[in-house]
Amino acid sequence: MARQVSGPEEDQPACSIERSLQVLGERWSLLVLREIFAGRHRFAEIQASLGIAPNLLSTRLKLLVEADVLCTRTYQEPGSRQRQSYHLTDAGRELDIVMASLQQWGDRHRPRPSGPSVRRRTHSTGQAVRVGFLTDDGREVPRSDVLVTAMRPSGAA
Amino acid sequence: MARQVSGPEEDQPACSIERSLQVLGERWSLLVLREIFAGRHRFAEIQASLGIAPNLLSTRLKLLVEADVLCTRTYQEPGSRQRQSYHLTDAGRELDIVMASLQQWGDRHRPRPSGPSVRRRTHSTGQAVRVGFLTDDGREVPRSDVLVTAMRPSGAA
Repeated sequence: MARQVSGPEEDQPACSIERSLQVLGERWSLLVLREIFAGRHRFAEIQASLGIAPNLLSTRLKLLVEADVLCTRTYQEPGSRQRQSYHLTDAGRELDIVMASLQQWGDRHRPRPSGPSVRRRTHSTGQAVRVGFLTDDGREVPRSDVLVTAMRPSGAA
Repeated sequence: MARQVSGPEEDQPACSIERSLQVLGERWSLLVLREIFAGRHRFAEIQASLGIAPNLLSTRLKLLVEADVLCTRTYQEPGSRQRQSYHLTDAGRELDIVMASLQQWGDRHRPRPSGPSVRRRTHSTGQAVRVGFLTDDGREVPRSDVLVTAMRPSGAA
């Protein structure tokens, strides 16, 4: 599922934020993904919803497919030619936490008077859902208890 | 702490991802913030670490200060003029989850052979920390149990 970034390691950014931004680091890419998370899979639907120029949308979709974040399926409406629709891969689906963390921050620090445009709840109990830090065994970690450590390059003493 | 986005509401994107990207939706903005999270607060340090053109860095820092994500402090080295250093506001500090979710995704889906460049652990117990979905009472929610609902505009039937 995880693709090693191609090319010699010394040419790749050491930081995984930077490697993520090579795929996502452009406003349109994240908005295109938002549309697909919202269930819009066809070029015309995404284009109409975003008001993005068709050539720009084509380029973003192509890059997201090449990066294994989206995959295509073929469909055909009666009387039309075959077309591609765009769907999340496993890697794309795992961007749900990135999207949710951007949403949560925007709702808190760039609020609208009329409140959030989407809400997250559990299917099972209807409780509100947020994004936060967790241990591997699923215990919440307050942000004040999170320690970030830079790893030494392998081979360093 | 939370600033209402200025201007009439109909001019603002309804989606909080889009409002967040008005501040963050540019590769350099997130990399500048990464530097400040890593403890680099002075213009020359950030510029040297990123290899970014000084005029581009000035522009990004100014926008991040205007958006209340960064604030400035004045410092003066002996024999030098007064300069500004750049620090996270409360809103900036709360981007830790956005940064961590980008890092987690990059480590999983854009890995390097030598592994992650940073690790998150708890101060208190040393356990590994990850980003995930939680209920308000701090119970982990599996992604398959997360339901996203679009909110109707207020006033709609």
